[in-house]
Amino acid sequence: MKVVIVGGVAGGASAAARLRRLDETAQIVLVERGAEPSFANCGMPYYIGGEIASRDKLLVAPVEMLRERHRLDVRTRQEVIAIDREAKSVRIRDLNEGREYEESYDKLILAPGAAPIRPPIPGIDLPGVYTLRNLSDADRLRTATLEAKRALIVGGGFIGVEMAENLVRRGVETVLVERNSQVLTPWDAEMVASMAERLTEAGVDLRLNNEVVAFHKANDSLEAELKSGERLPIDFAVLAIGVKPESCLAVEAGLEVGARGGIVVDEQMRTSDPNIFAVGDAVQVTHYVTGQPTQIPLAGPANRQGRIAAEACVGRLSEFNGVQGTAVVGLFDKTAAMTGLSEKACRAAGITFDKVYLHPAHHAGYYPGAEGMTLKLLFSPDDGKVLGAQAVGGSGVDKRIDVIAVAIQAALTVFDLEEAELCYAPQYGSAKDPVNMAGFIAAGVMHDEHPVIYAEEIVEGFLPEDVILLDVRTRDEHDRGAIPGALNIPIEELRERLNELPAEQPVVSYCQVGVRGYLATRVLLQSGRGAANLSGGYTTYRQVMAARKLASQ
Amino acid sequence: MKVVIVGGVAGGASAAARLRRLDETAQIVLVERGAEPSFANCGMPYYIGGEIASRDKLLVAPVEMLRERHRLDVRTRQEVIAIDREAKSVRIRDLNEGREYEESYDKLILAPGAAPIRPPIPGIDLPGVYTLRNLSDADRLRTATLEAKRALIVGGGFIGVEMAENLVRRGVETVLVERNSQVLTPWDAEMVASMAERLTEAGVDLRLNNEVVAFHKANDSLEAELKSGERLPIDFAVLAIGVKPESCLAVEAGLEVGARGGIVVDEQMRTSDPNIFAVGDAVQVTHYVTGQPTQIPLAGPANRQGRIAAEACVGRLSEFNGVQGTAVVGLFDKTAAMTGLSEKACRAAGITFDKVYLHPAHHAGYYPGAEGMTLKLLFSPDDGKVLGAQAVGGSGVDKRIDVIAVAIQAALTVFDLEEAELCYAPQYGSAKDPVNMAGFIAAGVMHDEHPVIYAEEIVEGFLPEDVILLDVRTRDEHDRGAIPGALNIPIEELRERLNELPAEQPVVSYCQVGVRGYLATRVLLQSGRGAANLSGGYTTYRQVMAARKLASQ
Repeated sequence: MKVVIVGGVAGGASAAARLRRLDETAQIVLVERGAEPSFANCGMPYYIGGEIASRDKLLVAPVEMLRERHRLDVRTRQEVIAIDREAKSVRIRDLNEGREYEESYDKLILAPGAAPIRPPIPGIDLPGVYTLRNLSDADRLRTATLEAKRALIVGGGFIGVEMAENLVRRGVETVLVERNSQVLTPWDAEMVASMAERLTEAGVDLRLNNEVVAFHKANDSLEAELKSGERLPIDFAVLAIGVKPESCLAVEAGLEVGARGGIVVDEQMRTSDPNIFAVGDAVQVTHYVTGQPTQIPLAGPANRQGRIAAEACVGRLSEFNGVQGTAVVGLFDKTAAMTGLSEKACRAAGITFDKVYLHPAHHAGYYPGAEGMTLKLLFSPDDGKVLGAQAVGGSGVDKRIDVIAVAIQAALTVFDLEEAELCYAPQYGSAKDPVNMAGFIAAGVMHDEHPVIYAEEIVEGFLPEDVILLDVRTRDEHDRGAIPGALNIPIEELRERLNELPAEQPVVSYCQVGVRGYLATRVLLQSGRGAANLSGGYTTYRQVMAARKLASQ
Repeated sequence: MKVVIVGGVAGGASAAARLRRLDETAQIVLVERGAEPSFANCGMPYYIGGEIASRDKLLVAPVEMLRERHRLDVRTRQEVIAIDREAKSVRIRDLNEGREYEESYDKLILAPGAAPIRPPIPGIDLPGVYTLRNLSDADRLRTATLEAKRALIVGGGFIGVEMAENLVRRGVETVLVERNSQVLTPWDAEMVASMAERLTEAGVDLRLNNEVVAFHKANDSLEAELKSGERLPIDFAVLAIGVKPESCLAVEAGLEVGARGGIVVDEQMRTSDPNIFAVGDAVQVTHYVTGQPTQIPLAGPANRQGRIAAEACVGRLSEFNGVQGTAVVGLFDKTAAMTGLSEKACRAAGITFDKVYLHPAHHAGYYPGAEGMTLKLLFSPDDGKVLGAQAVGGSGVDKRIDVIAVAIQAALTVFDLEEAELCYAPQYGSAKDPVNMAGFIAAGVMHDEHPVIYAEEIVEGFLPEDVILLDVRTRDEHDRGAIPGALNIPIEELRERLNELPAEQPVVSYCQVGVRGYLATRVLLQSGRGAANLSGGYTTYRQVMAARKLASQ
């Protein structure tokens, strides 16, 4: 069997290595356009910033290893430029020598990846306007960073934010322009307002709701023209707007692609041609939770898909079951992680959801060094099935999202999260872990034990006029900052002072994070009043306010 | 409704708070023998060692909070000494005043906990022989530690090991005597040999396979006499041998108890008397994986049981579904964590298992600061269902065990672990997370893709005589230390040198951690040879050797 693999990074390299282990006699040709196959693209921002000091570190599987250990026919700086499906062959251009030749295949695996989007604006091709895709890009950006005083990042997604951290680390004055009203758009806005604030705190000049409309040459440097009219002198720019699947080769060969350009594949990663497979960022995937087709470029799924395509080549029918969208991003000492659906993704997919917020510590509060986090859990109001989770904070954020990721994979409910038996010693967690707490709160909502309302309902004036907003924190806490119009009765005094609350008026109670507000809601409900708790308390309220403030800039 | 709760720590306090939220009118009497209810017992060793500086930190829910916020009738320094099930009342002794009185109940919740075992050896009641159960014990031990030069810990379980770290932190010369041939007996010996070595490295004088047979008074200090005959002069001793359920009250009241003394309860935590519930360390639980009754004292399950008992009191039928035994222990910079069954627990329960070892880094190796860990996964050879996992290393150990704990809760298989979609950015994990890698390796075993053998089979001479032991590492690696009798052919040369291996002799290959050994096994199998890979490679071999060395001391 002869298998040609187009693209030698995550999915392609995984497919090649897996195939070799499954079939010692297969002829495996790995064609990689760049100079190096199998490099750690997720590490590139940190190489640019110097956190990863040596470029060699990024070479996960150097060419020699692929050749000697896996006996792959690795051809770097070569590009597959056409597929002849009838003849079962590909046309390859050798980028060093310029010559072209045909290579036959029994099976073809496409792993071309996704290309950074370069919007068709004036000046986009000027020197100094970079994208970051491969190691040559990283080398160029590293050099530019070492020489630059001021740089512009276009796009506040994963790469934009990671690049911002690393430019700051190098002492480069950094402007970040994002078209949306928030950074890190896979998350809901209120969850990552603190990430935007962290950027600003680090000195990044953050411009939300703005766009670059043109680049201009200015003497020996560059000028970026923003939609707002401003012109920023910069030494270089990085486009980190997003990526689009590199499916031209597939399209030209008549393979089916989806609405967003991803190659359509079945569960064995087989395209519309049974002899051609496709894996990685170039393929359209099914969202594990919505069941709808989507485009989510992630390294983990790409690797898995590579393995599955290799297995399909030798006739073993493994299945790729979709992508959950588990993701994490670090920003200095802060972490944001998520899995499954966000609130806006639920809305976009037309999925009914309930949600709760909580603000637990990452380990026992009585042990030194406990760091706070905000956790948002989305679940189905029908059966409590977990739909998604987002967490932002310091240590332990990735752990809780990983735990909930497996819960989503296993179709668990919020009642299962209540029962999850997780590691507890004071340095590692709490007897009631944040995941359990999320389950407890959500289960309470499911049981109608404590109706919740959300900060945006208060902020947007959606509460009925006769609602009493009740702050059950201490007087000190209240005086340090409260929701306008709230009445303050500390939880400890509530039972004696119930008569201050007219029995016919509904009460929305809140505290700092939601715990005392929950207790107050229970007291009020049992006194015969209508009552609800502000989910996540004053802390979530402030996060919602911060997101609105950022969005209105 | 009037509910009396016996014991005010984890399970009792949880039951009380939960009950109040469910029923504002219930009369809730919380009877606690000690001076403080609801303290953080898992934090006590760190308070003794000074890591937790303030005693107040350990008071999770002080008496005033329980009274004012939850309106509980808290009675500290009072002890329930008898239950009259006919009359539905308990007899309470006020330990301050010595008086006794009756208190009636509609429902009774027993949360008496478990008592440290004090073996009946001579001198056990001498001053200076301590146990650690409540804050008064912690106070005494803290004082003793500040004054002591040399101390003895009896028992190398969780508390013994944590106490050792904290005594070392205080500069106390510490001897730890453990009856078994390993520390931390819930784990398998080879997994925690490095934890024992870490103790020794920190200066702890570790005595395995030994016991204290008597304490003697020696001038104004103490002498511990060991089974080995040695007499150790010490300033004080801590007994950390284990705990036994404090079920006397239940037994005297004629409630059913199990073989190991735990109170027998149903899924709503109801004892054999429908008006009496029991929760926490005093009850017998069902092991989630074996389905067999067991005794596992853990804070998380105790809290959950408290909630469930409270819910049962008001007629809501939640269910407690058993204990998995998820546990974690820290020792300086090292962590050991586990969930589900260990290898010896499988054997004890008569459960057939397969196992794999791996030694991944806790995050991408190309990002600075990656720490190694050893992960052991046990699974059913029938269907690949995950039975248990143990991990030992530095950062990220607790995360992987938490992820696998949820997998066990959801009855997932090793094939599901392959697919788990976990957080990946280089600071947090790998595109192929340790959990995925464990799944890949185990799935390979399930698919008969790579037969594995285990280090103990080599060490104990169980391999057939004609087996060739093949080291596929580089010459340098081999020369730094190898398994005696191994032939060294680096993986890169294996295909050309196959003729050096007689085709009729089976080959066991190994490398440093198992990856190259796996590839070699594939090459050998496809050459028509019998072949197997040493699971976990030379690293696991050394761990097994280390455990044997410790056990033979």
